[in-house]
Amino acid sequence: MPPLRPVFRLPRALELPHSYAPRQTLRQNNIRSRKLHSSPKCWLDLPQGKKPGKPDPMEEWRNPPPSKWPNRIRLLMVPFVGAIVYSMWTDDSIKTEAPTIAEKDRLLKRENGVSEQSPMRLRMEHFIKQQQKEIVAELEKVDGTKFKIDTWQRPEGGGGITCILQDGKVFEKGGVNISVVYGRLPRSAIQKMRANHKALDPNVDSLEFFAAGLSMVLHPHNPNAPTVHLNYRYFETADEFGNTNAWWYGGGCDLTPSYLYDEDAIHFHGAIKQACDKHDKAYYPRFKKWCDEYFSNKHRGETRGVGGIFFDDLDETEKDQEQLFSFIQDCLTAFLPSYIPIINRRKDMPFTEDQKQWQQIRRGRYVEFNLVHDRGTAFGLNTPGARVESILMSLPLTARWQYMHAPEKGSREERLLEVLRKPKEWV
Amino acid sequence: MPPLRPVFRLPRALELPHSYAPRQTLRQNNIRSRKLHSSPKCWLDLPQGKKPGKPDPMEEWRNPPPSKWPNRIRLLMVPFVGAIVYSMWTDDSIKTEAPTIAEKDRLLKRENGVSEQSPMRLRMEHFIKQQQKEIVAELEKVDGTKFKIDTWQRPEGGGGITCILQDGKVFEKGGVNISVVYGRLPRSAIQKMRANHKALDPNVDSLEFFAAGLSMVLHPHNPNAPTVHLNYRYFETADEFGNTNAWWYGGGCDLTPSYLYDEDAIHFHGAIKQACDKHDKAYYPRFKKWCDEYFSNKHRGETRGVGGIFFDDLDETEKDQEQLFSFIQDCLTAFLPSYIPIINRRKDMPFTEDQKQWQQIRRGRYVEFNLVHDRGTAFGLNTPGARVESILMSLPLTARWQYMHAPEKGSREERLLEVLRKPKEWV
Repeated sequence: MPPLRPVFRLPRALELPHSYAPRQTLRQNNIRSRKLHSSPKCWLDLPQGKKPGKPDPMEEWRNPPPSKWPNRIRLLMVPFVGAIVYSMWTDDSIKTEAPTIAEKDRLLKRENGVSEQSPMRLRMEHFIKQQQKEIVAELEKVDGTKFKIDTWQRPEGGGGITCILQDGKVFEKGGVNISVVYGRLPRSAIQKMRANHKALDPNVDSLEFFAAGLSMVLHPHNPNAPTVHLNYRYFETADEFGNTNAWWYGGGCDLTPSYLYDEDAIHFHGAIKQACDKHDKAYYPRFKKWCDEYFSNKHRGETRGVGGIFFDDLDETEKDQEQLFSFIQDCLTAFLPSYIPIINRRKDMPFTEDQKQWQQIRRGRYVEFNLVHDRGTAFGLNTPGARVESILMSLPLTARWQYMHAPEKGSREERLLEVLRKPKEWV
Repeated sequence: MPPLRPVFRLPRALELPHSYAPRQTLRQNNIRSRKLHSSPKCWLDLPQGKKPGKPDPMEEWRNPPPSKWPNRIRLLMVPFVGAIVYSMWTDDSIKTEAPTIAEKDRLLKRENGVSEQSPMRLRMEHFIKQQQKEIVAELEKVDGTKFKIDTWQRPEGGGGITCILQDGKVFEKGGVNISVVYGRLPRSAIQKMRANHKALDPNVDSLEFFAAGLSMVLHPHNPNAPTVHLNYRYFETADEFGNTNAWWYGGGCDLTPSYLYDEDAIHFHGAIKQACDKHDKAYYPRFKKWCDEYFSNKHRGETRGVGGIFFDDLDETEKDQEQLFSFIQDCLTAFLPSYIPIINRRKDMPFTEDQKQWQQIRRGRYVEFNLVHDRGTAFGLNTPGARVESILMSLPLTARWQYMHAPEKGSREERLLEVLRKPKEWV
């Protein structure tokens, strides 16, 4: 029998996205109209099937030449884990006469590139692409292994990049994915969304939408090192003339240790709180509570981990769009400083076989949450044509279900369960 | 840190159920009024907390003394995996004045024991208890390891026995469970059930119900040996005077190989077909199709395994109750001859590390079906107070999710996927 090895679908064709200027610089300079890039073409424009001229497109994706703007960028598409897929129900059989926002955006990018005066759609896309590269680069330094990059296009419009690390030196499995999706929402989906977004017109048969987000899960080998999950996303609908109708942000990040180090939870929550407090002192406590409620294995009376933040439907009733975008940016850029110090101090700690087994049981609980309770995963798996491998990227490489397992009294395993049953305030 | 070991909750108190006469003998003798046992008390009668006098109640449960009828039987309760739990929504805050069927049955058993003229509830309970013992005994012979027996009571009424084998010599994990549940269905549940059972009165606030079933999952270590699942159940509702209102049977069994041996699938399906054909030539093809449709990971376009049979809601519109009970009995007694020859020829086959890994990936698919699609599991996990460990007993000990795994062209792994994507006719 031939041996079984993981098979990665390598990018069929990939030229580089833009060598973006860091967001911080732009915001410090406060030049709102400065072009973020001036590439005459963007990746969504390009005909399919064009082969890249470069010998190592992955290397170039990681380290673009500083002064060179590639003419053409082609990314094949990855539909997106979780909440983006959740918001992604499309019905492309319904067409309007006016140019779609996908067409408008394509034109805009081709003619003007992306600037701080571009529509939020393009700015969000630009931001998550840049963040994905930074995060992947940093995690590669920690692990000493390169991510496998899988890029593809969604036939209905949109694109994405899945970066996966499997059986690395530090991470058992990890994924850092972005997706940018254009599509149409059917009437049924609009009516559900109206509960939270009154701006949505209930009297139309369908609405064009845009969704973009970055989604990440990292499962380390070492049972002392916690799993981390993150997802930030932007959603927008357009009226029949291509004007923005409703829009909102959602997301969050949370930490799932098998062995609880209070200092790790305190550091992680502290970094998130700092990002939140810059924008609204009420955000951290409010979104921390939301996180504990959402990431809960209700059937076991346990949270999935020690939490973080979670929020959804942040729109103009919350703050204006610039303020919320700035909040999302600060949350996402807080990720590396919130997690890297933790993984660095845990990744090489010694551990026993029994500790590894406890980690595997906790991994089982992670699978239970993602498959039973996570709305995004459920929606994704029930959506015909969804990319299952991207949706289930969040599952650990291995997991265990042991009948009636119970930690010993007074053990560290029992302490973790106590905290999961009654979430703590960490900062 | 103290080592982590699986902790089994041993039965707090257990005396023996009845040394039942085998069903076949009874049916051959055609003595419909013969008492199946004459124990003056049944396990549901007994006060909680009574300690057993015997030094090894488990041993006695397995091998009751042939001529001795224990006076008292006490079984603590196991709510039941899957479809029983699915049918188990109770609201015990609603009480009627007339004696409940639970009270009636308790009296009947105390005064007359169980005979072929007893209500179907008592006959089904009797039958699945006897079958559980036979199956456990046979599997213990195959494995060379004793099952751990966990018995408990449901505060709202009813009892059950969970028999679990974990890390045995042949089975990685296996469970053979029975449960017998008395409770009340709220109006909402009645209205859902009316779709299939017009006998249910839509104008009452609640209805007393009874549910009894045997449920089993066996996951062998050897990747050449298939996982098997079985579940047979009886459901009944009573009107306010304790008279039977609606009743039906459901169940099935299916085989899930990691490596497909056609002869195994042919043998398994052949044994089931033989049991079906005794009752109705249309049953096997009809229930085989139902099985392929139900046990399907729709999000992957694959069935869970190579199928078997599945059916639900078989009531008087199908055949009379005696005929259907006889059908259920033949299905359940067909289990041992359908599976034991397969496990015996596969359990000691040599295998490679790669084959073990493929088995682990297939275990992941099993988890996906049970947590994402199985209605019984979903309902159970969302029912407050349900016994999670019994519901998730069906999950394998270990599982694996490998991003973008694809079997090699022409391999045995690829052949399996082809069959799962397009179910075959085996007999």
